[in-house]
Amino acid sequence: MYPALQSLKARFAEIDDLRRAVSVLHWDMSTYMPQDGTASRGRMIATVEKAAHEKLIDPALAGLLEETGALPDAMLSADERAFLRLARRQFVRASKIPSGFKAEFFQHMAETYEVWVQARKLNDFKVVAPFLEKTVAYSRALSDFFNAGETAWTHPMDPHIEDADPGMTTTDLKTLFADLRRDLVPLVRELSSRSKPRTDFLSRACPKSRQVEFLNWLARNIGYDFNRGRQDLTHHPFMTKLGAGDVRITTRINETNLCDGIFSTIHECGHAFYELGLSPSQDGTILGHGTSAGIHESQSRLWENQVGRSREFWTYFYPHLQAHFSEALGDVSLEEFYCGINRVEPSLIRTEADEVTYNLHVMIRFDIESQLLDGSLQVKDLPGAWNDRYEADLGVRPSSDAQGCLQDVHWYYGGVGGMFQGYTIGNLFSAQCFEAALEAHPEIPEAMIQGNFSTLHSWLKENIYQYGSGLFPQELIHRVTGHDLSSKPFVAYLKRKYL
Amino acid sequence: MYPALQSLKARFAEIDDLRRAVSVLHWDMSTYMPQDGTASRGRMIATVEKAAHEKLIDPALAGLLEETGALPDAMLSADERAFLRLARRQFVRASKIPSGFKAEFFQHMAETYEVWVQARKLNDFKVVAPFLEKTVAYSRALSDFFNAGETAWTHPMDPHIEDADPGMTTTDLKTLFADLRRDLVPLVRELSSRSKPRTDFLSRACPKSRQVEFLNWLARNIGYDFNRGRQDLTHHPFMTKLGAGDVRITTRINETNLCDGIFSTIHECGHAFYELGLSPSQDGTILGHGTSAGIHESQSRLWENQVGRSREFWTYFYPHLQAHFSEALGDVSLEEFYCGINRVEPSLIRTEADEVTYNLHVMIRFDIESQLLDGSLQVKDLPGAWNDRYEADLGVRPSSDAQGCLQDVHWYYGGVGGMFQGYTIGNLFSAQCFEAALEAHPEIPEAMIQGNFSTLHSWLKENIYQYGSGLFPQELIHRVTGHDLSSKPFVAYLKRKYL
Repeated sequence: MYPALQSLKARFAEIDDLRRAVSVLHWDMSTYMPQDGTASRGRMIATVEKAAHEKLIDPALAGLLEETGALPDAMLSADERAFLRLARRQFVRASKIPSGFKAEFFQHMAETYEVWVQARKLNDFKVVAPFLEKTVAYSRALSDFFNAGETAWTHPMDPHIEDADPGMTTTDLKTLFADLRRDLVPLVRELSSRSKPRTDFLSRACPKSRQVEFLNWLARNIGYDFNRGRQDLTHHPFMTKLGAGDVRITTRINETNLCDGIFSTIHECGHAFYELGLSPSQDGTILGHGTSAGIHESQSRLWENQVGRSREFWTYFYPHLQAHFSEALGDVSLEEFYCGINRVEPSLIRTEADEVTYNLHVMIRFDIESQLLDGSLQVKDLPGAWNDRYEADLGVRPSSDAQGCLQDVHWYYGGVGGMFQGYTIGNLFSAQCFEAALEAHPEIPEAMIQGNFSTLHSWLKENIYQYGSGLFPQELIHRVTGHDLSSKPFVAYLKRKYL
Repeated sequence: MYPALQSLKARFAEIDDLRRAVSVLHWDMSTYMPQDGTASRGRMIATVEKAAHEKLIDPALAGLLEETGALPDAMLSADERAFLRLARRQFVRASKIPSGFKAEFFQHMAETYEVWVQARKLNDFKVVAPFLEKTVAYSRALSDFFNAGETAWTHPMDPHIEDADPGMTTTDLKTLFADLRRDLVPLVRELSSRSKPRTDFLSRACPKSRQVEFLNWLARNIGYDFNRGRQDLTHHPFMTKLGAGDVRITTRINETNLCDGIFSTIHECGHAFYELGLSPSQDGTILGHGTSAGIHESQSRLWENQVGRSREFWTYFYPHLQAHFSEALGDVSLEEFYCGINRVEPSLIRTEADEVTYNLHVMIRFDIESQLLDGSLQVKDLPGAWNDRYEADLGVRPSSDAQGCLQDVHWYYGGVGGMFQGYTIGNLFSAQCFEAALEAHPEIPEAMIQGNFSTLHSWLKENIYQYGSGLFPQELIHRVTGHDLSSKPFVAYLKRKYL
């Protein structure tokens, strides 16, 4: 191997190690850290992140990138070319931000977060509005830094989207989302007018310890390997990759909402399957991660919805579930359970939305954050704009800020711009992806009835997971489907299932 | 504050953060990491350690040390002077080792460890002997690096001792240990000839979950604050400081040895009390740690032995213990329990030794490692030398290497030299320290009978903990006792208790 390439790989391996150390610090903070550990943990995380950033913007690394840039493509393996492309991308993005800016921005976001917690408690957007104005200014400044020297970007949200979902732009997504909205709004209206299935049993009490038992069993039985991971309880469920053989999930237990734990477990398993299924040759390198927020979400949503809310899935699992929670589910048939977990109803809260209405929530946020960034919406007008859009798209109007524009942490913790599109990209691609899997293996649903997911696992590994970050999202979507990202398979799936 | 001093503090705070991040990685590895996480975790730890080391030997840091070295002492606070002294010490020691040497040495030790595991299994020292020879050579090389430019050190083990127990030398410790040995050997002989107390109940079955409950309760009731820490199960018990408000302990449960968990919990609580009791002004700085291995051990042994094996302690706790484990202890009186846990008997294994014989085990190792380093003992002659010393000092002779010179991991994992003296320094100072506490507060034993440790906690905080690493060990010993480290109070304590 070329010495410069070898050095570059070693440097990026260290950067990756430091980032994963940060993930360990976060995991511990969310699971087992004692109450008084907070202050020192915040400092520790900032320091390790800084160490990783320093290594990334090191002039010696820039020199190695230049040197390896001169290597002819033909002399490099596919993995090496993919590595160099991603390494350059990470370096360029990191070095566009002036030193000091990030620390200042993080500091502001940390303060904003505290104020948001208060504002939500007081149910008063005005409390946090001045902070959000500053956040918008910071987020615009970030756009400008990234935009410097680029000509392809036409909207200030583009660089933010590029960060999470490389290769996608505001304009493209607006077109795509408009198509989707055109299909969804009438569909939701039609489904809302139908008679509602029984859902009383979904809020019956199920003891925590029994739920933990079942969720571990369920994760194992859909293919999660506890030698290479573990499941713990946290306030917000998440998946985190701490090593090639250490990909952990967390879940949340609600004693009067059995579905909360079930679907968050399946969802996080979907994320974990992706990370656990990467090619071993990418272990410990920057290629050894899912390629984008949207693609990652497609894998979790595929398992949560296409698989986990299907009749076939519960044909196998419901008898187990019913036996485990006989007090809560003894009088509930499989069909009642299936209809209950798939009830469609417009609501105010994104995280509680069903799979039909969910993307309407996301697209409202996507449009609003793009308007905040390009100046066509002022922060002071946010609550009204939010409520109007809910009424137009979902037919429901929030009666308070807490139920409206204060509900999600994203803008008050991470910044404005590029925060939400990944959720809908994920939903759309999950349908394209599952459609492609079924086309290749029509027997997958039948196997699910037997509790057998091996064909699906293999197909996903071969067609999605193995590429890690070696393919950018659109390259991957093309390779899997032969097409661009599209809303059609998703809408067709919904119509098939619900009409 | 002087800008150079401020910068220096910020740099050392980052170094400290990175070191504590390593501690989080280790804690997780020992407690909850899934089986297949090992390989990537090893790399991650090495990378974060390297990042800390790079920051420590950074030329810019050297410049700041020079600049702050010019500040007149009178212009600095006591904490600032202590910080600069420790900072210089850490920098000088780190920069004496040529880059690359440490990685090579660690690599060798990692290999040696694997071979040692095999050798122990095969019960054959010869398997690991060639590796140990290399270790001795590496350890001598380390001495030479540290020794460069110093004139005070007369023995190649001195720099190793200096690392763990600053200010102590091989010669001083040999004199001190010879005194101790002179007292201990006849004492052990006399106690061995007495009739043995009843100990059958100590190996009765006590279920794991019941032990965990009791040990958490016990830790809480001797003053361990679970808002600032937690207790988990590991193969080897340890204490680890992850932040000023996050000092964790671990323990080991043996279902047929209740005492294993009890005394390791009390021992680790002693370590934790020290770290939790430091002055808040030292939080997050390099001063915010116990000052040496030996002083740390004194605090754990004080709680484990002076307190935790006392009649007063169990007068309060035994009724609780007996009620909790009524099947195992129902027919055992307080006096029988007290005598059972204080049984003295020469044995072959250090970690299972009682408090009378324990230091004989340690001093054998101390002498042997000093001889290996100065060349007066060859590696090939180690097993014989070991066995002879056991026979001379303890009157027992190992019949195998596994029970002899292969029993401790230290030489096969950390290196040769300076590995053991801290245990005996700890035992000696624990007695001096407890004597001083009793002199100031003769009511402490009476309070222990009531399960009240507040006076002892306050005295330790005021006289030991608050100084952190601001005082070096001998300064601290002087301040507490008015004397040097001495074996007399320890021997007097043993004679009072056992004769």
